[in-house]
Amino acid sequence: MSLSKANIKYLNSLKLKKFRLQHSKFTAEGDKIVKEVLENPEVGVEKLYCTEAWHEDNQYIIQQKACSFEIITNNELKKISNLQTPNHAFAVVEQLTTEVEPSVVLNELSLALDKIQDPGNFGTILRIADWFGIQYVFCSRDCVDVYNPKVIQATMGAFLRVKVVYTDLVDWMQTGLGQQLNTYGAMLGGRNLFEMSLPSSACIFIGNESKGLSQEIRNEIKHRIAIPANGQADSLNAAVATGIICAAFRNLK
Amino acid sequence: MSLSKANIKYLNSLKLKKFRLQHSKFTAEGDKIVKEVLENPEVGVEKLYCTEAWHEDNQYIIQQKACSFEIITNNELKKISNLQTPNHAFAVVEQLTTEVEPSVVLNELSLALDKIQDPGNFGTILRIADWFGIQYVFCSRDCVDVYNPKVIQATMGAFLRVKVVYTDLVDWMQTGLGQQLNTYGAMLGGRNLFEMSLPSSACIFIGNESKGLSQEIRNEIKHRIAIPANGQADSLNAAVATGIICAAFRNLK
Repeated sequence: MSLSKANIKYLNSLKLKKFRLQHSKFTAEGDKIVKEVLENPEVGVEKLYCTEAWHEDNQYIIQQKACSFEIITNNELKKISNLQTPNHAFAVVEQLTTEVEPSVVLNELSLALDKIQDPGNFGTILRIADWFGIQYVFCSRDCVDVYNPKVIQATMGAFLRVKVVYTDLVDWMQTGLGQQLNTYGAMLGGRNLFEMSLPSSACIFIGNESKGLSQEIRNEIKHRIAIPANGQADSLNAAVATGIICAAFRNLK
Repeated sequence: MSLSKANIKYLNSLKLKKFRLQHSKFTAEGDKIVKEVLENPEVGVEKLYCTEAWHEDNQYIIQQKACSFEIITNNELKKISNLQTPNHAFAVVEQLTTEVEPSVVLNELSLALDKIQDPGNFGTILRIADWFGIQYVFCSRDCVDVYNPKVIQATMGAFLRVKVVYTDLVDWMQTGLGQQLNTYGAMLGGRNLFEMSLPSSACIFIGNESKGLSQEIRNEIKHRIAIPANGQADSLNAAVATGIICAAFRNLK
């Protein structure tokens, strides 16, 4: 049996947010990420597509998940893959539901992303959150979709552990949970991060790749921070800046 | 007059390292980067291709550079561009020559990259070096080419200020300048960076995206360092790790 045309069409439709939303599904692929998806009891898998060799190597976790699967050839995998070099396994996954526990958000470190557009940056930021044990990432509604295949890829599996919440950030800061948080925003002209005493519970705001934080958000931010520069570059990549700020919050007291 | 077929072929050949080496040229494009190239008196430009509107807005810097230029349409630009959204200007640039000043390397912070493969990561690392005022980045010969168009793009202009030197890193550490340096290597199991006293002159080694530093390099490294994790991620993106380590070296004493 081989992949039907209708099936290929459905799987490729999931490259687009519109269809991911309609079906409440997304795709994850590659040996490492698909294994993590299968091993996670909280994640629903609609169907797994994998090569015969991969199936043989991973029989145990596939049986445990008890999900529907189809053995496909490498050529078939190429027809549905989002990767330049397709990597053995491809899963259609149920979108995750995220509940916000205010007590965690109030007592821990969180991130808030304002209009992060690049899927690689967004995924890398989730990976940073995962590294530093940050549970919640709040995102403006115009951030890239967390289920974009390039985001999923760049997270290296972090999307399974970090909770991503899309919201109207300005409203959230003015009248929602954000109002109660100790908010820090990265911006030019902010205080040198390395000369501050940083709290263990806070929400760190990161702005758009080229424009930084929007004016409405700047107006609500309680602490303006900056990474001191020693050279001539205009700016740092958004994910790199996030990594430096998170490392400072976690390690400087 | 329009772009000749031979010209389009030549410009597209520069997407490949082989032809860039053969002609000792590379290409840089987009409003911001081309302006920086033109404004830099030390950079030779073989030819500038730009739209009429861009030419009008930048007449002064084009005249100052006194380089050959050709006005092209947006459609022509698409035929030679490496960008998804071509951006007004495209320059063919002479490869830069880099001389190493040992006294600078011995007294400053430098980076050494072992087999960094992803052009986006490599370019982002040069942008980090530029931000932190790091003058030299030493690279193993199997790192991606600095003149790869995706690298140039990701540097945001840093390639004009940061000196990139390709060398046999192991040999350089055993018998060359690297032998005299205070070498720090990022690796799992290294000492917590934030609990160390860090010198102002050092060379920080960053390893390959999936494999980290090669064993031969680990053997030569004087100080093994690590970024402490609070969560469950296996690793950080190589550029993010570089940013955190450089920030620590520049700001913690």
